[in-house]
This record gives sequence, structure tokens and C-alpha cells, in this order.
Amino acid sequence: MVQWHWSSTPDASWHTDRGLAYGDGVFETIAVMPHGPVLQERHRDRLVAGCRFLGIPFTAGDWIAWWSELTDRGWLHAESQSGHVIKLIVSRGSGGRGYVAPDVARPRAVCIRSAMPEIPRGSVRLSGAQIPVSPCPSGLGLKTLNRLDQVLAATQTAKGCFDTLMSDHHGRPVEGSRSNLFILRDRVLQTPPLRSLAVAGVMRGALLEWAPRLGLRVIERPVTWDALSRSDAVFLTNSLVGAVQVEQVGCLTLPNHNALAEIRSFISQELGV
Amino acid sequence: MVQWHWSSTPDASWHTDRGLAYGDGVFETIAVMPHGPVLQERHRDRLVAGCRFLGIPFTAGDWIAWWSELTDRGWLHAESQSGHVIKLIVSRGSGGRGYVAPDVARPRAVCIRSAMPEIPRGSVRLSGAQIPVSPCPSGLGLKTLNRLDQVLAATQTAKGCFDTLMSDHHGRPVEGSRSNLFILRDRVLQTPPLRSLAVAGVMRGALLEWAPRLGLRVIERPVTWDALSRSDAVFLTNSLVGAVQVEQVGCLTLPNHNALAEIRSFISQELGV
Repeated sequence: MVQWHWSSTPDASWHTDRGLAYGDGVFETIAVMPHGPVLQERHRDRLVAGCRFLGIPFTAGDWIAWWSELTDRGWLHAESQSGHVIKLIVSRGSGGRGYVAPDVARPRAVCIRSAMPEIPRGSVRLSGAQIPVSPCPSGLGLKTLNRLDQVLAATQTAKGCFDTLMSDHHGRPVEGSRSNLFILRDRVLQTPPLRSLAVAGVMRGALLEWAPRLGLRVIERPVTWDALSRSDAVFLTNSLVGAVQVEQVGCLTLPNHNALAEIRSFISQELGV
Repeated sequence: MVQWHWSSTPDASWHTDRGLAYGDGVFETIAVMPHGPVLQERHRDRLVAGCRFLGIPFTAGDWIAWWSELTDRGWLHAESQSGHVIKLIVSRGSGGRGYVAPDVARPRAVCIRSAMPEIPRGSVRLSGAQIPVSPCPSGLGLKTLNRLDQVLAATQTAKGCFDTLMSDHHGRPVEGSRSNLFILRDRVLQTPPLRSLAVAGVMRGALLEWAPRLGLRVIERPVTWDALSRSDAVFLTNSLVGAVQVEQVGCLTLPNHNALAEIRSFISQELGV
């Protein structure tokens, strides 16, 4: 039985929540645009997979119940052109002895509605992070509540930069603190493999699936700095911004062939954004 | 200005706390024995170092204010021989845009009192974990709220085992999910180095400092399975149990020379436990 919390629901036991204590849970952040919520099935699948991996009893059925409640509360209706964001945190709830989880968990589901962040119009600049990516222990890039690496990387985002590019232990670029990395060259899309990621974004997954319809071949393989420089375009994806072209990382200026227009247009049509 | 929460203090904005959202904070768990609280200065120093590393404005002065309040509430007085445990969680509080921290944070300090867990009387058995240790990004073994690796390792603790031994990426044993690892041989104490640890326990730090008074030499160097087998004793430390000898890890039976008696006796005298 899930405990639901909508914004400021009082809750006498929030202070012992295992999400707060250990980051023992997962979350999703979903864009709600005038056309409707974006990529909800992919968000659902990642959240439910995360709960399954952690052994938290929150199922696709619980998601459906949530979705129905979201509809009733009007949270799936965008009141402005820029839309808004809904967030669902599912923690294992309170209980257990130290790190050991309780035999029967009562998950806590926290629902938050907030304004849409500013979406970049053109290409963006990135900072380079000193914080390496720690791949998700599942190897599946699940969006757990353990996001301190991303918080530390975000701290290193210089003024005017969109995000910070994080690297693996070999110094190869892997992902942004809040975005996945792609390079495009000669109609081949390359992106680092799933097992190397902290978070496998839902937009990343969608784009990999759409690629054949765009006449693009896909390679999931580690990306080098050299490959970045020799690409037709470097871009980042996430479910709020879609795909954003990168013009500069730190001091490195990247190619600017406007090769991304077709992909952006496709995403826009596909998602009605 | 810190927001203090004692057990079930109502708090309308707990659901947007960055500790819950991202594990953006640190914590300490302190034993309170009939003789008094155990190793409080070391707990304070680690928590304050963690806040400094994360840029959370919680100082030694805030700790002292907390300690004074703990005294007033009687939380530092053990009502039974087994004592109790007090826990302090300090998160960055609410606010900021996504992972980016707010310019001025208002930390949330959550205070919890709970029963002392069962302390093993004799030697213990351990499970071996599939989950590798991710060293703390600071290289200092700070006790952040990102503890999902430890939760997953604890899940793998077999019935009747005290803890699960986690390994580094070379497969060498590093630490328990809730304890640090030591081996003793020919009056030399060996323990994995600070930079390799997820958490540098306060009891580990104390024991390293006390070693010369026990006539022991200290080596901070990676520990091998072979070294475990050839030791006089293998033991785990944490601030609740002190030092506990390990008799078995998975199928590996360890030496049992009772070489730990002197160390246990010293800890007991030093801490009055």
C-alpha cells in the first residue's frame, strides 16, 4: 500500500523516510505541454524498473492510479504555452533497521508540480566537470535518489553554460549532469552505452528507437573527445528540452553544421512540442 | 539559518527537501551509553567536513547548539545499560533549480532518537557482496545521504550474518555496508586507505590514532583475500559495536587466535562501554 503525498500533505513520519536517509528510491520528472504529457510510458517503465531493481513494491498499476489522480487534479493540463513539470518521487518509505530494508515496505509517493525551466532556443555551451560519472549499479541507468554526483557536477556549471559534461574514469565524456550525450556524423548517431551511464534518459531511449525512421544508424559506444571534434554535431537530450546542440565544451569549440535541425523537427512533431 | 526538526515536527516543505530529492546532505549516528555519548567530536568533525565539502552552511557552532538542545531534552542520558542511538541528518534544505543548489541554502536538520541495535557478543560471519564500493567523491569517506550501494549490499546479508563485505573494482575487500575492515598480523594493523572508502568510520579513525598506545603499527593499504587468510585476526569496526572479530566471510573460514581481546578491552576502557 503506497502512501501518497500531494504537495504539503502533513506526514508525521517523513523524517524517517528512507529516501531522505539513504536515497532509497527513484524519481521521474515529466514535462506537461499544451499537447499533453511527454513520453509518459517511458517515464513509467523506468520508474517501475527502478522499483523492481530496488525491491520497492510500486507497480505499473500504482502508476496508472497516480495518472488517474493527476487527471482529476488537472495536473496533466498545461495552462500556458510553456507547460509545466510534474515530479514523482517513490521511496521505500520508513522502517527497517539501518540499511536493511523492512520485510514489507510501505512506499512513500511524493507528487510535486512546478514551473517549466527555461528551455534554450539555440545551441549551448557546457562546462567540463571534475566529478566522474558513477554508473548506476544496475547497469540500467535507473533514476535513483542518489544524485549527489550530479549536484556536485551542477555546482561546476559556469555562468551562461547549459550543463556540465561528466566523464568516465578514462576521461571520456559520458553525459551531462541532467542530459545524455550524442554525436552525429555521416548519418550515424553515437552515444555512450547504457552500462556506462548514471542515468539513461527517456529522450535518449526514444531517439535511439526513432533513429531508423530518420534514416540514421545508431552506435552505442564510448565517445572520445576526438570524436566530438570530428562530428557534424554534438548534442544533449533530456525529456524537458528535447535535443540541444552544443557549440562549446570548456575551451573546445565544436562543429556547427546545423545538422541537428532535422532531428529537432522530428522530435517536435513526434511529441507535439 | 538551520531549520530544526525533532521527530514529528510538522514541516510543510519536507517533500521538496534536497536530501530526499537527491541525497544532498550528510548524517551521523551516535551511540549514547550509560557513560555518555561515544566519540562525539569525531562525529562532529566528519559531519562538518561533509557540509563544508558540499557547501551546506552548517558549522561546528550549529553542532554545539544541537548538542546543547540534546542535553536539555535529555537525549544524552542513557536510560538503560544498552544505551540508545541519536541520529542527525543535515540536508541542504529545499530550493534551487533541479540539481543546481540555491545560492543561499537553509539547511534542514532532522533529529531522531532510536533504540540501540543488537550488539554481537562473539565473533561474526559476513556475506560477500556483488555490489562494489563506490569511493566517496571527496576521497574523504564522508557520510553523505547517498547510501543506496550500502542498502543494496545489506540486502545481500544472509540470515545470521552480521554484515556484507563490499569489494573494490579489483575484487579486493574494502568495507562492510556499515563497518570498516581491519586485519591484524604480527602487531601490524592494516586497513584499506581513505580514498578507497565509501565511508570512513569514526571508530576506524579513533583506532588508527590509538594504535601506537596499543603498541601496534598501522598500514593503510588495500587488503587482499590472501592477507585475510594469513592474518592473526580480521575485524570490523563501527561506532555502535566497537570492534567485532570476523570468523567467516561467505565460505572462507578465517583465523581465530583471539588476537582482538586486547583491542576490544582498550576500546571498552577508552569509551567506557
